[in-house]
Amino acid sequence: MATGHTDPQRRERIITATLDHIADAGVAGVSHRRIATRAEVPLGSMTYHFTGIDDLLREAFTRFADHIVAVFEQHLGRADSPEQAREAVTELIHTLSAGPRRDLILTQELYTLAARRPEYRELTQAWMRRSRHLLERHFDPDTARQLDALIEGLTLHRALDDTPHSRDLTRRAVTRITTTA
Amino acid sequence: MATGHTDPQRRERIITATLDHIADAGVAGVSHRRIATRAEVPLGSMTYHFTGIDDLLREAFTRFADHIVAVFEQHLGRADSPEQAREAVTELIHTLSAGPRRDLILTQELYTLAARRPEYRELTQAWMRRSRHLLERHFDPDTARQLDALIEGLTLHRALDDTPHSRDLTRRAVTRITTTA
Repeated sequence: MATGHTDPQRRERIITATLDHIADAGVAGVSHRRIATRAEVPLGSMTYHFTGIDDLLREAFTRFADHIVAVFEQHLGRADSPEQAREAVTELIHTLSAGPRRDLILTQELYTLAARRPEYRELTQAWMRRSRHLLERHFDPDTARQLDALIEGLTLHRALDDTPHSRDLTRRAVTRITTTA
Repeated sequence: MATGHTDPQRRERIITATLDHIADAGVAGVSHRRIATRAEVPLGSMTYHFTGIDDLLREAFTRFADHIVAVFEQHLGRADSPEQAREAVTELIHTLSAGPRRDLILTQELYTLAARRPEYRELTQAWMRRSRHLLERHFDPDTARQLDALIEGLTLHRALDDTPHSRDLTRRAVTRITTTA
């Protein structure tokens, strides 16, 4: 009873501590010992809840992707027309690019991991599929794919730019990429 | 005479070794000792040629950005009309996204560094300015900015996707974003 192995909050605490650690120090620094210390759980909890570091990273980044997909959904869920969807996407890009630095860092850490180790690309692919699926409620699949890439690029450039581009420029870009001949 | 401090190849070897090390193990693992070993130079060469790790990272990532900007220039330099520029950008996206994994990893490592430490954002900003400048030979500044973000997003998504999108989709996206009303 005292082990707390079945405490579901312990698993959650480990996942949160993992994402916090990645945001601070990067994927390279993740170890059972460091995460256990940060999550304030016994070392044995790590191997009880996760089969290894790969499993832990997968679960943590899946949790993070869930969070960003939820932000997508909050914005796009309210749109009832392509015009409203374009406005929602514009708002989404500005929310993400001005959002917590932690989210920007975790996104880049995941992409770096997927770039270095192809076996993690299933995570980025699943994430892209989910975003496109939400965009396909309002646009054809080809347009959704183009728009998803534009969202990625505009969000990243805006977040890394000390003189970030205006909402008007975002709106024009979104309108152009969703305008079919 | 035996120190080789003034050997310009030594400085180059250190920069190359730094980029190789970042591609393999990430920015977090960069230390004077590790890079000196990898570059096969005496430890003293590190402090002779660079004021510290920040200076080394800046020089290495500037060298890397020079390389990617040169790829931009190779593609765009030959274009004589907006139509040829659109085709050159399409080709550029497919060259970059199918290019060496090392380039993809180094790009993401730089973005992660700039996301985590704002003082490195001058590197990403300088890089964006240079790409946009090349695009502005063919497009107005606002369009160049939108197109630069689209290139970023399409290249990244294509590189991380096991079923990468077609050249035709890239061409359509580039045409849409460069079509002014």
